[in-house]
Amino acid sequence: MNTRGRHLLVEYTGCDVDVLDDLKRIEALMKEAARVAGATVVNSVFHAFAPHGVTGVVVVEESHLSIHTWPEAAYAAVDFFTCGDCVPEAAKDVLRDGLEAACVEIMMVDRGMGEPGHGIHLRSHRTELSASAEAVADPVTPTPRARA
Amino acid sequence: MNTRGRHLLVEYTGCDVDVLDDLKRIEALMKEAARVAGATVVNSVFHAFAPHGVTGVVVVEESHLSIHTWPEAAYAAVDFFTCGDCVPEAAKDVLRDGLEAACVEIMMVDRGMGEPGHGIHLRSHRTELSASAEAVADPVTPTPRARA
Repeated sequence: MNTRGRHLLVEYTGCDVDVLDDLKRIEALMKEAARVAGATVVNSVFHAFAPHGVTGVVVVEESHLSIHTWPEAAYAAVDFFTCGDCVPEAAKDVLRDGLEAACVEIMMVDRGMGEPGHGIHLRSHRTELSASAEAVADPVTPTPRARA
Repeated sequence: MNTRGRHLLVEYTGCDVDVLDDLKRIEALMKEAARVAGATVVNSVFHAFAPHGVTGVVVVEESHLSIHTWPEAAYAAVDFFTCGDCVPEAAKDVLRDGLEAACVEIMMVDRGMGEPGHGIHLRSHRTELSASAEAVADPVTPTPRARA
């Protein structure tokens, strides 16, 4: 059997804090993310912490998806680990939209590459800004008027 | 609240294939790993696949531990993601011993470092061989006899 998997470690910042603290919405988002990735859900566990924060894991036939939220920091740490033909990148975007994240940092790692001691490859590490965040980070510079 | 976490991505190869396919032993090892790491277990999910392989997740107050096994490849992909004062390195060693792994590859990543777009730091990536594997990989070279 093919052991190869793709593992996305994702950090969502500048999120909607109400969504981050809403267990039912987080659970729905994670299950939708699994569906969009093409994964088959086997089981799931979600837990709300006091005074705030949600942790959840969706076990899929193709590995797992996990989330930990810190509403007080508008932050969530999410992992999408899938094998086979799944598309974890699509799952990532479901959470970006659902959490209304301003910034998404993604480290993509290959797992189970087959050779002992060389099974993990760091494929990429990059950041995506939402359209509104990009507008703030890189405002359209007004053309300066020529002096009279 | 402090969002900082330490996440160990670990690949165990050359494992005992009977252990890798034994749900009860895998579950016991993962819960012992959580305990040794200093984490508090909230919930857990374990699932045996047909014809072989086990997936499991232990949700802890400090994040989660997950495992996916491929007995046919003598391989397991494990994640130890903990926040606070936990010691995920200790958890890693529980699985190394329990799975009787010949080779352990560890990528350590810091999560939630606080600055949007700079929350994930790759801290280290290294490989450990078991004592018996080291003996095989680096045998004592016999001193060649001088020719008569």
